[in-house]
Amino acid sequence: MKAAISSLTTTTSKNLNLHYSSATLSRSALLNPKPLSRSPSFLPPIPTKIHHTRIDFSGKSHFHTNNFSPVMASSYKPEQARAPPALPLPAPPVTKAIYFYVYILFEIGLCQLSVTPDKERNIAHARKAIEEAAQRGAQLVLLPEIWNSPYSNDSFPIYAEDIDAGGDASPSTAMLSEAARLLKITIVGGSIPERSGDKLYNTCCVFGADGKLKAKHRKIHLFDIDIPGKITFIESKTLTAGQSPTIVDTDVGRIGIGICYDLRFQELAMIYAARGAHLLCYPGAFNMTTGPLHWELLQRARAADNQLYVATCSPARDTESGYVAWGHSTLVGPFGEVLATTEHEETIIIAEIDYSLVELRRTNLPLQKQRRGDLYQLVDVQRLNSE
Amino acid sequence: MKAAISSLTTTTSKNLNLHYSSATLSRSALLNPKPLSRSPSFLPPIPTKIHHTRIDFSGKSHFHTNNFSPVMASSYKPEQARAPPALPLPAPPVTKAIYFYVYILFEIGLCQLSVTPDKERNIAHARKAIEEAAQRGAQLVLLPEIWNSPYSNDSFPIYAEDIDAGGDASPSTAMLSEAARLLKITIVGGSIPERSGDKLYNTCCVFGADGKLKAKHRKIHLFDIDIPGKITFIESKTLTAGQSPTIVDTDVGRIGIGICYDLRFQELAMIYAARGAHLLCYPGAFNMTTGPLHWELLQRARAADNQLYVATCSPARDTESGYVAWGHSTLVGPFGEVLATTEHEETIIIAEIDYSLVELRRTNLPLQKQRRGDLYQLVDVQRLNSE
Repeated sequence: MKAAISSLTTTTSKNLNLHYSSATLSRSALLNPKPLSRSPSFLPPIPTKIHHTRIDFSGKSHFHTNNFSPVMASSYKPEQARAPPALPLPAPPVTKAIYFYVYILFEIGLCQLSVTPDKERNIAHARKAIEEAAQRGAQLVLLPEIWNSPYSNDSFPIYAEDIDAGGDASPSTAMLSEAARLLKITIVGGSIPERSGDKLYNTCCVFGADGKLKAKHRKIHLFDIDIPGKITFIESKTLTAGQSPTIVDTDVGRIGIGICYDLRFQELAMIYAARGAHLLCYPGAFNMTTGPLHWELLQRARAADNQLYVATCSPARDTESGYVAWGHSTLVGPFGEVLATTEHEETIIIAEIDYSLVELRRTNLPLQKQRRGDLYQLVDVQRLNSE
Repeated sequence: MKAAISSLTTTTSKNLNLHYSSATLSRSALLNPKPLSRSPSFLPPIPTKIHHTRIDFSGKSHFHTNNFSPVMASSYKPEQARAPPALPLPAPPVTKAIYFYVYILFEIGLCQLSVTPDKERNIAHARKAIEEAAQRGAQLVLLPEIWNSPYSNDSFPIYAEDIDAGGDASPSTAMLSEAARLLKITIVGGSIPERSGDKLYNTCCVFGADGKLKAKHRKIHLFDIDIPGKITFIESKTLTAGQSPTIVDTDVGRIGIGICYDLRFQELAMIYAARGAHLLCYPGAFNMTTGPLHWELLQRARAADNQLYVATCSPARDTESGYVAWGHSTLVGPFGEVLATTEHEETIIIAEIDYSLVELRRTNLPLQKQRRGDLYQLVDVQRLNSE
């Protein structure tokens, strides 16, 4: 199964260098013992002191009652609700020791950047933000959609870079690679316009703590919408859609990638969950119409329905630009709860992710075991074909 | 295709009498010309005066730009994102003439009822609420989950009725049938405990304006959850799960039915949307833990993701009862916007549904044409097998 995922991800880039760190104590384990994150008051209390005993990443959660009937559930074929069957959640490689306990947590940085028509400035500016996020403890940094260029069909061809050629042909990703290596962090590099042959893509690069490109996601669902008098944008006028979902094993867990409009397609998040994702990262630039309507709703829904973390990162709002972004970069927990968010100004959010909550919520609400594979089935076409 | 749906629905009850009203002027067309519903201010304006010209229920929405490339979209096989392929939205049989224009709208009544251990009182009380809702203009009335009985595993066997036997064996549904016939309205009758042979179900009956049982939905996903210290409930201790999704053509459109925990499974809503539903009705009794966490989130997500109306109806809150319901019955529009809601006290919500908005929102955001059938596919097992 793991081989299947790797082979899929590999198809997205020649430069992939997938590896999977085993669960060891992280470098900041004893340097940085912080209090556990607090959930909103209406959430059930998290039994923090027994995390290390109650978490089971074998994929076999234990239901804490004798009343539950596994016989009944199995007759509904929950394992068939996904084809191929859902993978068990992998053991996250991120751990932190606090006194006698080992926690599965780390900090994420969401850099809600201001973006200008000056590409050099955008790159230098993003670098500073990444450095600040790392300095404040982030082991994973997420950037916005199209952070090196104005968001417009006129700009995409001008600002596009040849990522596969690398070096001078792609100063934006060269910076990301160097920053990741020097800071020893994972970077989900938002997105930039990518030129590949005669085609343009909206592309997200993921760099590991060694500076190597681990995955490249080309936006699968292009942003072609028409709400008369409000927002009309036809991304397919200039861009080509990617051909593959992208999920990648990093030092901070298994991460599924989507870009902006990809968030609207619940099937993609469902596929990632079935491939064992701990976290979905969506760089995105919703606008002043779709932002208030759907931005928070969709990310909370993806998190709650799939019982995993969702992080989004938007550009800061610039009311003078042709496309005005909504902002509101957000981290959502596996119960669909907003853990950290902001308004529309430029800012860096640092927030804690605790993967033990993913397993806990799946024990609270064992949706995976309750699905009706006898009635519906979601097929992951590429994973199925690769088996 | 239509035959496939009918045959599926028919399997849920011997008493089904499916029919599909053609789009004619409704009886209240000229009697009751009300102003159109107003959307929240952040929503794009609805071009009300051209509804009659821009709505196309052939399933072929027109994209209002020359930039959109259907060739590109078709290479992604959006029609294969559902198996069998999604049905076109049927012409809703509900219309209302106002001056020279014909609108596709009607009023729904959500009866958030108080429920007591006195079954006779519950039935009489529900009847009064239905009558009041109809008097206030509702052509469709929705009741809460388990409205004739306390919500508890101890009560289900005691309050259960033999719906198929009817008459004295099921006083609750006999009342619903009579009320529907006398008031000439459609009733989605919340749910009651049903006894069938030696099994118990959590069952929703849909009655047409002629008083006939049109569909019977047995809760497909049983409520077995365990959030220690907050809420633990194992419905499967007494109940058996239903074996079929339920979608039904009524005088007020094509309606997909789910009961409470069914709302958590996005696949069911996706199946209903692909079968051409205008509206999903979920009688439900979320509790004081899951209510604030997920009740509104899930119904808004189902509506926005599937671009259709979602109506929910809860019992009123009784803090003295063993299971304390969240309340907050709600109507959500096809952009995921809350159109009408309430707190937890007993009340009747009357709100307007305008199906032309379903088509409008699908034109604004043509998700159906943008899905990646080359990457994922949701299979409706029963519909596929019936073809």
